[in-house]
Amino acid sequence: MTSKVIQVEALRRFCEDTFVRLGFKKEDSTIISDVLLISDLFGIDSHGINRLQMYVQQLRVGYIDNQSQPEIVFQTPVSAVIDGMRGMGQLVSNYAMKVAINKAKTSGIGLVTVRNSNHYGIAGYYSLMASNEGMIGLSMTNSLAAVVPTYGKEPMLGTNPIAFSFPTIPSPFLFDSATSVVSVGKIEVYDRLSKPIPLGWGLNMDGNDEQNPAEVLKSVFSSKSGLHPLGGGSELFGGHKGYGFSMVVEILSSIISLGTTSNHVEKIDGNAGVCHFFAAIDPKIFGDPIAIQKHFETYLDEIRNSEKAEGQNRIYIHGEKEAESFLRRQADGIVLSEKTLDQLVSIANELNPTIIEYLE
Amino acid sequence: MTSKVIQVEALRRFCEDTFVRLGFKKEDSTIISDVLLISDLFGIDSHGINRLQMYVQQLRVGYIDNQSQPEIVFQTPVSAVIDGMRGMGQLVSNYAMKVAINKAKTSGIGLVTVRNSNHYGIAGYYSLMASNEGMIGLSMTNSLAAVVPTYGKEPMLGTNPIAFSFPTIPSPFLFDSATSVVSVGKIEVYDRLSKPIPLGWGLNMDGNDEQNPAEVLKSVFSSKSGLHPLGGGSELFGGHKGYGFSMVVEILSSIISLGTTSNHVEKIDGNAGVCHFFAAIDPKIFGDPIAIQKHFETYLDEIRNSEKAEGQNRIYIHGEKEAESFLRRQADGIVLSEKTLDQLVSIANELNPTIIEYLE
Repeated sequence: MTSKVIQVEALRRFCEDTFVRLGFKKEDSTIISDVLLISDLFGIDSHGINRLQMYVQQLRVGYIDNQSQPEIVFQTPVSAVIDGMRGMGQLVSNYAMKVAINKAKTSGIGLVTVRNSNHYGIAGYYSLMASNEGMIGLSMTNSLAAVVPTYGKEPMLGTNPIAFSFPTIPSPFLFDSATSVVSVGKIEVYDRLSKPIPLGWGLNMDGNDEQNPAEVLKSVFSSKSGLHPLGGGSELFGGHKGYGFSMVVEILSSIISLGTTSNHVEKIDGNAGVCHFFAAIDPKIFGDPIAIQKHFETYLDEIRNSEKAEGQNRIYIHGEKEAESFLRRQADGIVLSEKTLDQLVSIANELNPTIIEYLE
Repeated sequence: MTSKVIQVEALRRFCEDTFVRLGFKKEDSTIISDVLLISDLFGIDSHGINRLQMYVQQLRVGYIDNQSQPEIVFQTPVSAVIDGMRGMGQLVSNYAMKVAINKAKTSGIGLVTVRNSNHYGIAGYYSLMASNEGMIGLSMTNSLAAVVPTYGKEPMLGTNPIAFSFPTIPSPFLFDSATSVVSVGKIEVYDRLSKPIPLGWGLNMDGNDEQNPAEVLKSVFSSKSGLHPLGGGSELFGGHKGYGFSMVVEILSSIISLGTTSNHVEKIDGNAGVCHFFAAIDPKIFGDPIAIQKHFETYLDEIRNSEKAEGQNRIYIHGEKEAESFLRRQADGIVLSEKTLDQLVSIANELNPTIIEYLE
């Protein structure tokens, strides 16, 4: 099979049916599929349906418990600590962000830290849950250690993404970013295309800068070395800054939840131990939300209309590329690579061959 | 006069006397001087007493009102909006962080956004106020636009630093970082030393990459162009990420306070318009603060003890360099450059020649 364009609704049905076959309730399968497909619709191919095989494997090794329910183990009117009970990351996170939003509705703000969860997909999905309700949304997660601290060789931090969203017209401001130079998913994309990566993204098994993506992935997955933080491998261009932002993610997810720090994620028997953090803030606690939003939109227009660098004709606001990709792919469908298609067919063959028709 | 080592207490008296002569109350002069000297003690020479002349100038042009008091214009149990009333940034910010801490003492969290203030010195001073009380501290500020958005030529964002601190033994975790590749102060340090800057830090008047620090400063202060965000001038190494973190600072400082965005800072008659954001979070809202701190210290030790990159023998935790510099400079004194010394002598000559003896 070569690469192919599939309509979103067909992919959605494929995805939902797969998760039902994997033992999830119908409504839970809907949530998980929505998180994966929004990623594909946003153009973030590294975190969408191409990850299906990874989730199937993580269910099989027992990282993910498809029957568990997250539990609030501690709370105040402005905060909660949630034990994910080894549930699917998307379900735990959807629940946790709802807790944050509900607290923000009554207290103005809700901070929720989560331990004992799993890979949650794109960070921005959850921050958008808050901004879709007119709130400021914040979402972070730690992950399998893949990033070396400044002057380190061993990966001690996850790619630890941060997503921050804020309601604006026509599409929300959405900043969603790994705190490493690039995500592991991006290295995998280069690997799939057999394309060398730029010098300064990642290290090989010996801890030296490396341009072969396969070598960098080998060092990440063997925990021998990994990626540089945002800003690179030294202080000259601010590598210690990316390392610092990554530490902030670690503190708010794995530290205050008493969870598993990234260097131990997926290294404990039968437990991934991924940790998250979510916040929802009602802008009403700062006055008039409409005046605030208008003030922001004025600033965004000033940025859009400011002078461009030579050879450039557009300055993007964070979230615009995603919103435009969403509309385009909603209409035109999603391109699946040959490798992803093969994986999906093989999953369907095993679980339910009738859903292969959705890929045709 | 050549460069010279001055003991901290002498510099403190010099600084306090100067601010008293400039019309500030004794207790206010003490606060301002403490913020400046902590920066010098921390080894952040770009934000300490070398800025005295800048503050004197900003008082003279009327940006800073030495008689005003900040006012809370809106508040809830978890938040406040403060009008800085054009006060000295250090005084407004000291007040605002105290408001945040007091709210956190009763509500678990306090978020404070500030408009209409001035340059506040190092961001970390205020986040440390919270962590010194056992809380998580967060401090951000916008500033005179000096950073171009990704694919832009015109500076639309300040260097917009973020400081995050967390109580740990022996010294607090303190991440304090401009969201640009480097701060303007760092470019000024290279300029003072007549040293070329690395390619990729900043742009000249024409918007081209430039290694002469004087040319980059010229483009910043004329608002023609400026510095790159953390991650550099393109998306390849994550420049859009630094731009995004900078936008988060702008949202929490100038947007939700309905204040002046960086592109208008110091461009309104007689008003700098600098905006800040402060947060204090009591870790008690997540359970047992002692268990949380111990969990964090275990992780920090694991990072310190992890394998080093070739040729490196130490992995620093954020805040360690500052804490070590503090002890060293507290004992040995602070080296003032010839240029800074000349400026201090000239300020003293004008305001109160008797305090020149503190520099001898």
